[in-house]
Amino acid sequence: MNEFDLIDRLTRSLPGNSSIVIGPGDDCAVLDFGIADRLLLFKTDAVVEGVHFPPGTEPRRIGHKALGRCLSDIAAMAGTPVAALVTIALPQDFDPEVVVAIYAGINALARRHEVAIAGGETTSNPERTLISIALLGWAPRGKAVLGSGAEAGEAIFVTGALGGSLAGKHLDFEPRLEESRWLASHFPVRALIDLSDGLAGDLRHILKASRVGAELHSSAIPISVEAKRAAKARPGAKPPLLAALTDGEDFELLFTVPSRSAVPLLDAWKKKFPNLPLSCIGKITAGESITIKDKNGVRPLSAHGYAHFA
Amino acid sequence: MNEFDLIDRLTRSLPGNSSIVIGPGDDCAVLDFGIADRLLLFKTDAVVEGVHFPPGTEPRRIGHKALGRCLSDIAAMAGTPVAALVTIALPQDFDPEVVVAIYAGINALARRHEVAIAGGETTSNPERTLISIALLGWAPRGKAVLGSGAEAGEAIFVTGALGGSLAGKHLDFEPRLEESRWLASHFPVRALIDLSDGLAGDLRHILKASRVGAELHSSAIPISVEAKRAAKARPGAKPPLLAALTDGEDFELLFTVPSRSAVPLLDAWKKKFPNLPLSCIGKITAGESITIKDKNGVRPLSAHGYAHFA
Repeated sequence: MNEFDLIDRLTRSLPGNSSIVIGPGDDCAVLDFGIADRLLLFKTDAVVEGVHFPPGTEPRRIGHKALGRCLSDIAAMAGTPVAALVTIALPQDFDPEVVVAIYAGINALARRHEVAIAGGETTSNPERTLISIALLGWAPRGKAVLGSGAEAGEAIFVTGALGGSLAGKHLDFEPRLEESRWLASHFPVRALIDLSDGLAGDLRHILKASRVGAELHSSAIPISVEAKRAAKARPGAKPPLLAALTDGEDFELLFTVPSRSAVPLLDAWKKKFPNLPLSCIGKITAGESITIKDKNGVRPLSAHGYAHFA
Repeated sequence: MNEFDLIDRLTRSLPGNSSIVIGPGDDCAVLDFGIADRLLLFKTDAVVEGVHFPPGTEPRRIGHKALGRCLSDIAAMAGTPVAALVTIALPQDFDPEVVVAIYAGINALARRHEVAIAGGETTSNPERTLISIALLGWAPRGKAVLGSGAEAGEAIFVTGALGGSLAGKHLDFEPRLEESRWLASHFPVRALIDLSDGLAGDLRHILKASRVGAELHSSAIPISVEAKRAAKARPGAKPPLLAALTDGEDFELLFTVPSRSAVPLLDAWKKKFPNLPLSCIGKITAGESITIKDKNGVRPLSAHGYAHFA
């Protein structure tokens, strides 16, 4: 049984009830608690020392990342976060000042997005620090944007610049909450997701859920300075475009809009968010594959999220 | 900085917002999401291998305990659980069948209480299994029962039989959801908590929050068969009464009602829940100490939740 078989087996037999609008599989669970104009968004995410951040990481940045990942998932539904609970599992010889600093990182980000920290617990995990955050938010009823609404012909957009996140951005990124709410309230966003697994992998999630394909324009994919720097730093390093497609942890927004909205969106975006680039990187196609087009022609992206370049 | 200083320092500076009705310190956070007649209850709880269950514990029982602890906290607010998210952190060489069995334990308990499992994640924790559950529920607006409402003269009640939980009950207990909702809708319950730290410790939480004291009747405290058996098993073992006061993880209900309700409650309880004992174990007093009365007189319980017997 591999990981995908396991997840499939687990999710097939989960207990449900009438509160569930969207269960496992999208960025957040969506719940109906009978609020006239709103649905609840419910998300948990954990970061583990040595897995999601290296030992010795500045504690404030660990806290920032732990909450930031959950907030990014609320952004991926064009939602508004409201309240979080924080679980911190600590080695037995933990330094209380580290816990205070982790909370300082969580609290600063929470304040910026008007999220309450409603409580939590500290428990023991003898070998390493683990932080799990549970987050509750809302989206206007019928307006939560799923990852499954893409249709052939739509334009594909991505915010920011991609790749090289492990150089630092994965600990400092700002979740795109304001941007996604603005997008969903001003343009007909059809599919929306936050980039955590890398552009190629996360685009594949949208395509699979929407049963469509995509054609990307190689030259339009925004590559981060860090990805370019890493490629130059040593021979045999990942080429910058491959890094932008596959590095992961960008926590930018990936979404589609009808093609007629593409130019008005780019114009309005530049005025509203002059400091955050928005790039149209290609279009949704009727097939179920991803191709990438450059000056030498059109090539397929492999099934594993990696582009094979000759 | 000790554990209490740390928690005090952390909770003093948490970001809040207008959604928070009850923040850190009670059994669950209580949130106002603008639902006319309901408040939301929000809780997380983690169990860690080697801390909350021994290595080799039957996976189904681990899952049961993980969800059961959260459900018990909803019971402690006389609430109704609705939906949970499950985070399982696993060693790298985990057996997928173990994960399936942990979920089977979670799912069976969830079905019994009509709780949906709305999603979750599996992540890596190389040395040991850790399960964190986030749970969302509700209570009628204005009717969530806090741990802080006890007043002098009220009768103190406890369900079930206490002590010796580590012999097995801590993995198999049934959260008292039906009982607590029935209680709160039929009797004026003033303070309610679930027993996780042991009767002496949890009673102290109620007393501190309510600024009152208590006098317990030694002979009225219900002692479990397991606590009696453990006391006989080896010389120097905890006496049964001390086990009932301090063992912890009973997951029974501890609550107070006005003294005039005590007899009607006992009568109605016997009819409604004939298989679950309910015991009146003493009364709330005006002081701020706990005393315990037996045939030899009245003695104080120490500040650390342990009774000192000569």
